[in-house]
Amino acid sequence: MRDILDAVAAGELSPEAAEAKLRGYVTGEAGRFDAARERRSGVPEAVLADGKTPAEVAALVATSLESTDRAIATRLTEEHVRAVRERLDEEAPAASIRLHDRAGVLVARSPDFEPPALDASVAVVTAGTSDAVPAGEAAAIACEMGADVDRISDVGVAALTRLTDQLERLREHDVLVVAAGREGALPTVVAGLVDVPVIGLPVSTGYGHGGEGEAALSGMLQSCTALSVVNVDAGFTAGAQAGLVARRADAARRE
Amino acid sequence: MRDILDAVAAGELSPEAAEAKLRGYVTGEAGRFDAARERRSGVPEAVLADGKTPAEVAALVATSLESTDRAIATRLTEEHVRAVRERLDEEAPAASIRLHDRAGVLVARSPDFEPPALDASVAVVTAGTSDAVPAGEAAAIACEMGADVDRISDVGVAALTRLTDQLERLREHDVLVVAAGREGALPTVVAGLVDVPVIGLPVSTGYGHGGEGEAALSGMLQSCTALSVVNVDAGFTAGAQAGLVARRADAARRE
Amino acid sequence: MRDILDAVAAGELSPEAAEAKLRGYVTGEAGRFDAARERRSGVPEAVLADGKTPAEVAALVATSLESTDRAIATRLTEEHVRAVRERLDEEAPAASIRLHDRAGVLVARSPDFEPPALDASVAVVTAGTSDAVPAGEAAAIACEMGADVDRISDVGVAALTRLTDQLERLREHDVLVVAAGREGALPTVVAGLVDVPVIGLPVSTGYGHGGEGEAALSGMLQSCTALSVVNVDAGFTAGAQAGLVARRADAARRE
Amino acid sequence: MRDILDAVAAGELSPEAAEAKLRGYVTGEAGRFDAARERRSGVPEAVLADGKTPAEVAALVATSLESTDRAIATRLTEEHVRAVRERLDEEAPAASIRLHDRAGVLVARSPDFEPPALDASVAVVTAGTSDAVPAGEAAAIACEMGADVDRISDVGVAALTRLTDQLERLREHDVLVVAAGREGALPTVVAGLVDVPVIGLPVSTGYGHGGEGEAALSGMLQSCTALSVVNVDAGFTAGAQAGLVARRADAARRE
Amino acid sequence: MRDILDAVAAGELSPEAAEAKLRGYVTGEAGRFDAARERRSGVPEAVLADGKTPAEVAALVATSLESTDRAIATRLTEEHVRAVRERLDEEAPAASIRLHDRAGVLVARSPDFEPPALDASVAVVTAGTSDAVPAGEAAAIACEMGADVDRISDVGVAALTRLTDQLERLREHDVLVVAAGREGALPTVVAGLVDVPVIGLPVSTGYGHGGEGEAALSGMLQSCTALSVVNVDAGFTAGAQAGLVARRADAARRE
Amino acid sequence: MRDILDAVAAGELSPEAAEAKLRGYVTGEAGRFDAARERRSGVPEAVLADGKTPAEVAALVATSLESTDRAIATRLTEEHVRAVRERLDEEAPAASIRLHDRAGVLVARSPDFEPPALDASVAVVTAGTSDAVPAGEAAAIACEMGADVDRISDVGVAALTRLTDQLERLREHDVLVVAAGREGALPTVVAGLVDVPVIGLPVSTGYGHGGEGEAALSGMLQSCTALSVVNVDAGFTAGAQAGLVARRADAARRE
Amino acid sequence: MRDILDAVAAGELSPEAAEAKLRGYVTGEAGRFDAARERRSGVPEAVLADGKTPAEVAALVATSLESTDRAIATRLTEEHVRAVRERLDEEAPAASIRLHDRAGVLVARSPDFEPPALDASVAVVTAGTSDAVPAGEAAAIACEMGADVDRISDVGVAALTRLTDQLERLREHDVLVVAAGREGALPTVVAGLVDVPVIGLPVSTGYGHGGEGEAALSGMLQSCTALSVVNVDAGFTAGAQAGLVARRADAARRE
Amino acid sequence: MRDILDAVAAGELSPEAAEAKLRGYVTGEAGRFDAARERRSGVPEAVLADGKTPAEVAALVATSLESTDRAIATRLTEEHVRAVRERLDEEAPAASIRLHDRAGVLVARSPDFEPPALDASVAVVTAGTSDAVPAGEAAAIACEMGADVDRISDVGVAALTRLTDQLERLREHDVLVVAAGREGALPTVVAGLVDVPVIGLPVSTGYGHGGEGEAALSGMLQSCTALSVVNVDAGFTAGAQAGLVARRADAARRE
Repeated sequence: MRDILDAVAAGELSPEAAEAKLRGYVTGEAGRFDAARERRSGVPEAVLADGKTPAEVAALVATSLESTDRAIATRLTEEHVRAVRERLDEEAPAASIRLHDRAGVLVARSPDFEPPALDASVAVVTAGTSDAVPAGEAAAIACEMGADVDRISDVGVAALTRLTDQLERLREHDVLVVAAGREGALPTVVAGLVDVPVIGLPVSTGYGHGGEGEAALSGMLQSCTALSVVNVDAGFTAGAQAGLVARRADAARRE
Repeated sequence: MRDILDAVAAGELSPEAAEAKLRGYVTGEAGRFDAARERRSGVPEAVLADGKTPAEVAALVATSLESTDRAIATRLTEEHVRAVRERLDEEAPAASIRLHDRAGVLVARSPDFEPPALDASVAVVTAGTSDAVPAGEAAAIACEMGADVDRISDVGVAALTRLTDQLERLREHDVLVVAAGREGALPTVVAGLVDVPVIGLPVSTGYGHGGEGEAALSGMLQSCTALSVVNVDAGFTAGAQAGLVARRADAARRE
Repeated sequence: MRDILDAVAAGELSPEAAEAKLRGYVTGEAGRFDAARERRSGVPEAVLADGKTPAEVAALVATSLESTDRAIATRLTEEHVRAVRERLDEEAPAASIRLHDRAGVLVARSPDFEPPALDASVAVVTAGTSDAVPAGEAAAIACEMGADVDRISDVGVAALTRLTDQLERLREHDVLVVAAGREGALPTVVAGLVDVPVIGLPVSTGYGHGGEGEAALSGMLQSCTALSVVNVDAGFTAGAQAGLVARRADAARRE
Repeated sequence: MRDILDAVAAGELSPEAAEAKLRGYVTGEAGRFDAARERRSGVPEAVLADGKTPAEVAALVATSLESTDRAIATRLTEEHVRAVRERLDEEAPAASIRLHDRAGVLVARSPDFEPPALDASVAVVTAGTSDAVPAGEAAAIACEMGADVDRISDVGVAALTRLTDQLERLREHDVLVVAAGREGALPTVVAGLVDVPVIGLPVSTGYGHGGEGEAALSGMLQSCTALSVVNVDAGFTAGAQAGLVARRADAARRE
Repeated sequence: MRDILDAVAAGELSPEAAEAKLRGYVTGEAGRFDAARERRSGVPEAVLADGKTPAEVAALVATSLESTDRAIATRLTEEHVRAVRERLDEEAPAASIRLHDRAGVLVARSPDFEPPALDASVAVVTAGTSDAVPAGEAAAIACEMGADVDRISDVGVAALTRLTDQLERLREHDVLVVAAGREGALPTVVAGLVDVPVIGLPVSTGYGHGGEGEAALSGMLQSCTALSVVNVDAGFTAGAQAGLVARRADAARRE
Repeated sequence: MRDILDAVAAGELSPEAAEAKLRGYVTGEAGRFDAARERRSGVPEAVLADGKTPAEVAALVATSLESTDRAIATRLTEEHVRAVRERLDEEAPAASIRLHDRAGVLVARSPDFEPPALDASVAVVTAGTSDAVPAGEAAAIACEMGADVDRISDVGVAALTRLTDQLERLREHDVLVVAAGREGALPTVVAGLVDVPVIGLPVSTGYGHGGEGEAALSGMLQSCTALSVVNVDAGFTAGAQAGLVARRADAARRE
Repeated sequence: MRDILDAVAAGELSPEAAEAKLRGYVTGEAGRFDAARERRSGVPEAVLADGKTPAEVAALVATSLESTDRAIATRLTEEHVRAVRERLDEEAPAASIRLHDRAGVLVARSPDFEPPALDASVAVVTAGTSDAVPAGEAAAIACEMGADVDRISDVGVAALTRLTDQLERLREHDVLVVAAGREGALPTVVAGLVDVPVIGLPVSTGYGHGGEGEAALSGMLQSCTALSVVNVDAGFTAGAQAGLVARRADAARRE
Repeated sequence: MRDILDAVAAGELSPEAAEAKLRGYVTGEAGRFDAARERRSGVPEAVLADGKTPAEVAALVATSLESTDRAIATRLTEEHVRAVRERLDEEAPAASIRLHDRAGVLVARSPDFEPPALDASVAVVTAGTSDAVPAGEAAAIACEMGADVDRISDVGVAALTRLTDQLERLREHDVLVVAAGREGALPTVVAGLVDVPVIGLPVSTGYGHGGEGEAALSGMLQSCTALSVVNVDAGFTAGAQAGLVARRADAARRE
């Protein structure tokens, strides 16, 4: 601990980074940031922008970048993105910013961040264009966890040949995230055809009875093939779970 | 009307048959029987045994046979069947009885019943063995309406080649009833592959969230291909709707 | 395949039309378009505008027109319509555009499109004025599939004589789509009176318990007469299913 | 109060009847009996047998008879009926017992009970035979409140002429209880045709989605005609509400 | 019929009024208006503004006024009201207009309209201020049906003495409409204290589990006292049902 | 720790009691028993018999008695009770057994158990006789935690004077558990009249919509007065929470 | 009463304060205000701004301040706050105003208001920043009831050490309000670790299945530790219930 | 193919095994058995006994054993087990049978079956004893897929130290199945503490609101840590998904 305090005194370490090292989380202006999440549970902490003001999101992004050399924010509107960019322009001009546009995900990295690189791969598969947002979120998170990510789009069950053409490509990966809305049949069909673990990601398309992704979710839970599932539109969770499986495969390869 | 009353007086017509002719329904010991249903709406009246005692079912079957020369009863337990057999043995020994065993359907016909025969066909398709009961009910009703009925079983989406082998056979029919439980994906996949109208029949298999056929029903309602649907386990309704489509095809062929 | 490639090389065939012929779908700027849907499943592909930007809808409409000589788009707002008109004015000035105004449906056809014409008819029946939108969608689709479409409006069960006056007209058709909101009783009453197949179309009117069309849907599923049903407001699906039945009747008439 | 206590001392009044007069309720071996309910709210107290043992029901019936000269018990099994009969045979041999068999209702009266007689009438209407139990409960309660009760059975909407034949008879009453299961359309249709208040009584028939009377209930709540509604199978409530309307009509006639 | 046509020819009767007399409904620019509803079912037809444009509502109001000398419109926004006023200023300047402001109800009457006047009364009771809108709707309808209407406000169960002070006033009426949101206990408590029929009107206040009036509705359906109920916020239905009970009491008084 | 092991060696302490002291829980033949629960969280551990065999319940009761000198078991059938009695007769003949009969609760105590005695009191209030089972469970638990428990029964809102007579008695307690089924209005009315904290305990009576206690639960959650609530039939939880409040009051009194 | 009237006549008492003293509530321009609530039930009346106009809220705040020397308003938007400030600036310039900003709560006090001060304390605990609004509401109400309130924030179960560091602090209080959204596990974990009563406050965060606080609510109701619960986002209720427990502890301490 | 047919002709291969090799499935007396499932999707086919008769289950077990040298059957009652044993005693006396007793799983293997053995491990973790059945099913399936399976029981969140003592053991595995009923908090807490992928398995314990495992399921879907989930009681699916992850880890280790 003395080392850390010395470094703070010498101006080599920010108080945020010091608190993160000592207690595992950082108390910022917009709440506490769980800086030890990745070390403890393998999944990097992310700022969920839903229900937060642009200023709060920008502050949390800055805290994350300051204490862990990276920040991930999800479900951003354009206004959130603008606030984040303005704050980082001022406070962390050296940071690189990448926006996963359709997915509403922003990743900022300080120059000395060393991104993880796993010897393992994840495919993110969609049934149609309206699945792009949560699928993009899943891909971005898995990517930040270090996995190779392969996007396979528009292979819905309404026209099966689109899917059957891709079977070999699907079988090459360590884990699949398969997104689908409406009746959500795609993960079931995929899991019947390949021996890779499939994580079903129901999407909130559809209207009327079973709309808002409820039919897709309950169909995936009832699937006659073996799937595990995340909540409706929970792209972050699907990507993180895929990333954890990829981490195990990577660790196994390195043994 | 006078003719009818004369025939009753002469003992050539039973009072039940006379009431059916004059008013369209017959008042029996266990309630009114809608003897004009088939003439009016194309679907023969059937006795739903659910929630009725064996004696009530037997009485209604006898009334139906007496007034329309045929009786159809559905959702029968063994006890119901026994009661029906005993009553008909006594009252209508000349009637033929056919039991669709796994479907819980019994059909009795008097010797002079002239069964309808349509120049039209229906396929009843199932995903797995647990779909047999409602599928059998659907097949029995379509058959009683005069359609040729083809049973195609165990073509669930977990192993797609079982289905793709049958595409030509599916395309030959005028209408398909496709039964499936759990996630209920089969009708969606079939309707994406053939240009015959598909009636989805959700089956009450499955447990947990979306069990009791609710996932299958909502998935079929949300289908990304064009389906119409009946209620969970509503084999009678699916078969009757298929029979009505077959009647139109038959009428068109005879024009 | 060589013929197709030659035609592309000669500028006689657009790359989109060539891809559609070879693979069955076309990859455009806003996602894949399933150009083979009609050939495979009898139902023309349509662009669902819900949740898409005006630019995306316009791009998909253009792709559809380019590859299949027709485009159908549903659930359009005025803004969507404007974007489609602007794009087609520029890219396909020779195309004709028809707007089914109350139904939110737009159909564009290139000059050499040969519309299908079935020797079969569909009636689209409504209980009240608030059923007009999904009923109009159903009528537009059935019409694009080639059926003769008869609109019968405002025959709700609150005043039964409006309905009983129309029975003969109802009986003349091959299939009926019957739309109703609130308690959704109209399809049940119609199906008890005529021997034509009835497809119930629940409408999302009504408030409080069972609102948003849920009471209408569950009432139609529980109907004591024989109906099949589509999801709440699913006018496209109802019209497509009616169109498929009309196709079978037409085929039977031509045999 | 002194009069009452004197009467108890003289053996002219049982302690139960005295407590009922003084406090409004009687504390018996199986709980408190609300003896003042009819005086206060117009509806006689009844013993709901559901979830009570035969002995408890018998004890409460005895208390009711003792304190108010009448007892009404609902939802009785055969075992309950037997226990009640045995207890009354012993304790109140002079009481008359009437069993409304299909409705599961028992009414016992002591010889000096003076039944109310209203100059007002109620019709209890059913769609089909499976509506008989709650409809019978409604009829029994309305009858005990003094109304003339007319039973009109089996007039379901599947065959409308059965209903339209009865319109004049329906219009003669002060209030209608209309019971229906499955899609529950009958009260809606009746209320559109007559100007008598209709109380909808949903019945727990039907299976699958909207089963257990839920579709009937939500359909009646959404009715496009003017209805009020009671809970599924709540025959007692429907009958009591009809009885209260009849009491007002009776009072108005006597003014 | 000849009389009517002669009157039309002579300009003494508008075509709308003539159609209403001959067929019972009038076909206007915004749909059919059920002009015979009051004669047939005792409840005047009303224009529900929800989901209709201001122009449509104004057109239907004009048709109603033209054919029945009165128009009732419910759930009006300010914009609807403005459109109605403008149209009537032009087409029916002699008509009187009354706006029930908090209830969103407008009533227009032509000079020769003879309002019904019943010798019967209705009380409309509320638990709190947020119940004012549906309660006002109920009061307006009952009033248009001719009943004397008494408004009793803010007698919620949180402070019981407010209610118990009003018991005598409540007992004087022929029927009570009792509105309550959140847990909806007021109708239950009232019905336990008075012998007048109570119609429970659940109101869509409350948030979280059981919000949107669902707790109030289910509580009233489960009430341990005798109530009938209408749907959440269904002020029109509650008022109409109360009006029908008042009509019976009035008729009884006049016998 | 050495003391404990010495005591085990000397036969003065059973191995179960030693494990409980050292680790906080005891591993028995039917699973682990959380012997430290009361010390840690103030609530004694209880054996929930639901879904356990009689032998398993008896084993857990024996373990509890052995390690903590007391055992509490809830939701016992007669068969469970018999198994417990037999086992304790053999293994712990000195223990006293008390059966709270209607509540399905059994308490066994070894002779040297020193029951807690709080200077604080709890009232358990019921609306009707069908609330007796969960209310009895609540009373038994609060009693075992040392509170004085007062039972106030049958004060349902259908007849308010029963309740208003008890207000002074209610106000004397530290906390109230108020049980009610069907519409569950009693806790709301009580909490509006007294300034003692009220814990609402919904009971699974009632049928149809909102049955199984759902209406009571949602009504209590929506209450217009201040309540906290436990799950349907969760008598143990309600009694434990009341016991915890009583413990605080007791501690405050002893300060 | 004469004293009160004399004081009004002398201008020493406002008519509102007089009505409050005599009848318990005050009839103002925007409805009745329950001025006796705190005296009767221990909880001060508060103005719920949800669904009220700024003018109505301002009027009720003024009435409250006038009759009870304090006003509490909850769920205020900025517009509500502005209207209240303007009105009080004019009518009650001497009053102090405190805005609990993130919680949407405003408290106004006249100079001679004597705030209650309890010798008892409440902790309000949150899992994350999105729980701040209802937690702040709970804290404000408990504070107005006189309790010492301790805020413990951001101790969610995702990083358990944040919680376990606070155990001693938690154990010092008389009662805990524990707020949590999404899966709502925090109150369960806390109640397993401390012997203080825990009131679970579910928060409407989360999306997809179980969103809007439904998963948190049902999880708290199912908790394997002893909790009582309030509705989703019902901060006022949670704070009031905690305040009532604190009042009992305070009273016990003063005995 | 000729080789296979020659082997059948020579009696070296049963017709069932030949059909399995040629078509992938075997048509037996009780339906089709998907013999290629393991080869295609990595998960061995299992016979779900739910809703099948003992004879049907025994027949399918025999077919499985005949065609794949192993049979797995789940959700067996004692009667099912007896029927299987009798049939195998007769038809396959050399087969070994293992019964996973509490889990309702039976595995039969012919002498030449070579069980898979993965260099990968799975932990199956439970919160309490009532989670044993689905957890046992999960363990049995993962074991049949070749994984090392470690059972960690009774570490529910009510007493956290039981869990924190096991963290190192949990971190050693490739994947965790974590079963929990009631509020289902255990998988959330575990996933916050370890970096191994967690598959949540909700269990159908609990009563009242959120009972039948619905609270556990929705809590796991809403988890603030990263989990994937299977349906309530879906032990087979959880074990199969864990097995698939173990297969990938094994494959990675062997690369």
